[in-house]
Amino acid sequence: MARPEARLRRTILDQPVLDHGGSLANARQLFPGAPEPWIDLSTGINPHSYPFFDLPQAALTLLPERSRIAELCAVAAQAYGAPSGANIVAAPGTQILLPLAMRLADPGRAVILGPTYAEHARAAALAGHQVVETSRIEDLSAADLAVVVNPNNPDGRVLEPGLLLELAATLRGRDGLLVVDEAFMDVGPAGASLAGDADQDGLIVLKSFGKFFGLAGLRLGFALASWPIVQRLEGELGPWAVSGPALEYGLKALADQGWRSAMQKLLEQEAALLDALLARHGITVNGGTPLFRFVEHQDAALIFHRLGAEGILVRRFERLPNCLRFGLPAGEVERGRLDKALTEWREKRDEAP
Amino acid sequence: MARPEARLRRTILDQPVLDHGGSLANARQLFPGAPEPWIDLSTGINPHSYPFFDLPQAALTLLPERSRIAELCAVAAQAYGAPSGANIVAAPGTQILLPLAMRLADPGRAVILGPTYAEHARAAALAGHQVVETSRIEDLSAADLAVVVNPNNPDGRVLEPGLLLELAATLRGRDGLLVVDEAFMDVGPAGASLAGDADQDGLIVLKSFGKFFGLAGLRLGFALASWPIVQRLEGELGPWAVSGPALEYGLKALADQGWRSAMQKLLEQEAALLDALLARHGITVNGGTPLFRFVEHQDAALIFHRLGAEGILVRRFERLPNCLRFGLPAGEVERGRLDKALTEWREKRDEAP
Repeated sequence: MARPEARLRRTILDQPVLDHGGSLANARQLFPGAPEPWIDLSTGINPHSYPFFDLPQAALTLLPERSRIAELCAVAAQAYGAPSGANIVAAPGTQILLPLAMRLADPGRAVILGPTYAEHARAAALAGHQVVETSRIEDLSAADLAVVVNPNNPDGRVLEPGLLLELAATLRGRDGLLVVDEAFMDVGPAGASLAGDADQDGLIVLKSFGKFFGLAGLRLGFALASWPIVQRLEGELGPWAVSGPALEYGLKALADQGWRSAMQKLLEQEAALLDALLARHGITVNGGTPLFRFVEHQDAALIFHRLGAEGILVRRFERLPNCLRFGLPAGEVERGRLDKALTEWREKRDEAP
Repeated sequence: MARPEARLRRTILDQPVLDHGGSLANARQLFPGAPEPWIDLSTGINPHSYPFFDLPQAALTLLPERSRIAELCAVAAQAYGAPSGANIVAAPGTQILLPLAMRLADPGRAVILGPTYAEHARAAALAGHQVVETSRIEDLSAADLAVVVNPNNPDGRVLEPGLLLELAATLRGRDGLLVVDEAFMDVGPAGASLAGDADQDGLIVLKSFGKFFGLAGLRLGFALASWPIVQRLEGELGPWAVSGPALEYGLKALADQGWRSAMQKLLEQEAALLDALLARHGITVNGGTPLFRFVEHQDAALIFHRLGAEGILVRRFERLPNCLRFGLPAGEVERGRLDKALTEWREKRDEAP
């Protein structure tokens, strides 16, 4: 009989496509009579995107210049607080970096702090590791590859940077690797990022551009690491990994400290409005970040379906049937529709015999 | 002492960045006094890009829908003549596919038909192969991984599809893999593509979107292969590998049979005009495709420098010092500047004592 770990690995590999939020095509199939337009609260993508601007034609026609990619990495280092642009590799989204990063550890035992974003387990298995998920951070120190999402998705749990640096040192002592996915750190607590320590050996910090800047379609992400790791990842990605449009938006948006500060405040305010709205319907927020709220409720499945019937898609989790994740409504109109749909859910529930 | 093959591998890995065309930043450093604007003839990218159109905002803000990526693959299958969209994986450029494709063969002996595009050797070495370059197609049948660029870059040599299918069958019999890079097949001879055979085991055909459509900054490329290979490559790339802008342009441009036919004719006419221009200056074209012309000339280095001083960048090759590659001038004005610069080169040469 196969060991549990081997079985897990096979299960993951047999399922090349995982269920993620953000598919309104799937939602329309599931709820064919729902009113349009759909409100997509199934992702953690900022509904207030960075202001659009006209792209120079050369962004579409020409290969991006190496010197401008270096400039992008320097701007990203400044924005994220990394030691320097030489500690950064730019990629067409963080997703594509996952198997590349996880192959930097020799095949061994990958331990993932979960429950969390499912692609990490899939990527670690692809990279040849035996994958185990744990809910105890102590279990990570015995890993060859440890993976932490910080703040965590979906529950928003934040780990102390001191704890993570200690873990990185332990792993480094055994040629292990710690991957810290900071996809939502733009809206995380001050001082919690490991970006400033990314030049340490055996540590990779991942940053997502599209979520906070609301530009997920552009595909832009970064790995922050020591120079030897950066060089190996750049070698795998090859020249011209980042598109012209992603380059132009990245250069402008990451350097816009004013927009970033104002947006952090706005998202915090809107998250508080969403929490208050949910609380009025007896739904308590247990965690999250300003870009998404995590709730646990015995009627989670009913709420998911009731909202779906009203054209509002939230994120459910196969393995956490009592939990839902709500992205931020884009403003008053969307909050109004959510409020109305939740009112109807409660009325239907209270009418039931 | 290291064997030659091991030494080659180390040399390739020590050099993460290879010299490519398309860098005007480098050109400006090399020729600081050259007149602007530069004419970049150092790439094989079509100077007449597909017509620009306004992107829907969702192309930037939202993650591309899986169903639309499937649509893109179906349109690409139609355009390239592949058996079906299920035989196609879309990627942010073919470059990023190279190490992924080459890892599908167990580490062994990679034989590359050269001289050719240098990234293949680099990617094969990254994938753990011992890399050998050969100029004899017979040498490929003994490989674990064989790589052919067809039509070849830089010399435009075209291989018979029957010969390549025979090679694929030989390699398949030994669990080997044949990679055929058809980056320039959009302007290649009719009937030379292996796209229609891409569902055969042990064969991967690579297609570049940006070169023929003149949209290299978008980053879009395809691998055509059997379903098991497509599934493995999709697993490595993960969801959302292709950006929204690349998706929108790909869907529209690949389906535009009228533009494609007209452009093929236009490029052939312009290549003939370039050949005639070069011939007037005693430079004979030895090969190429309608997107670039390959010349051999004893004064290649002098021509490169003379043109550079006049703000015209052509492609030179470290390993082929007597050869140059000319991309297509964008029209009459650019051809005029090239003509003038070559006239000056000849006058200076003839004045010399």
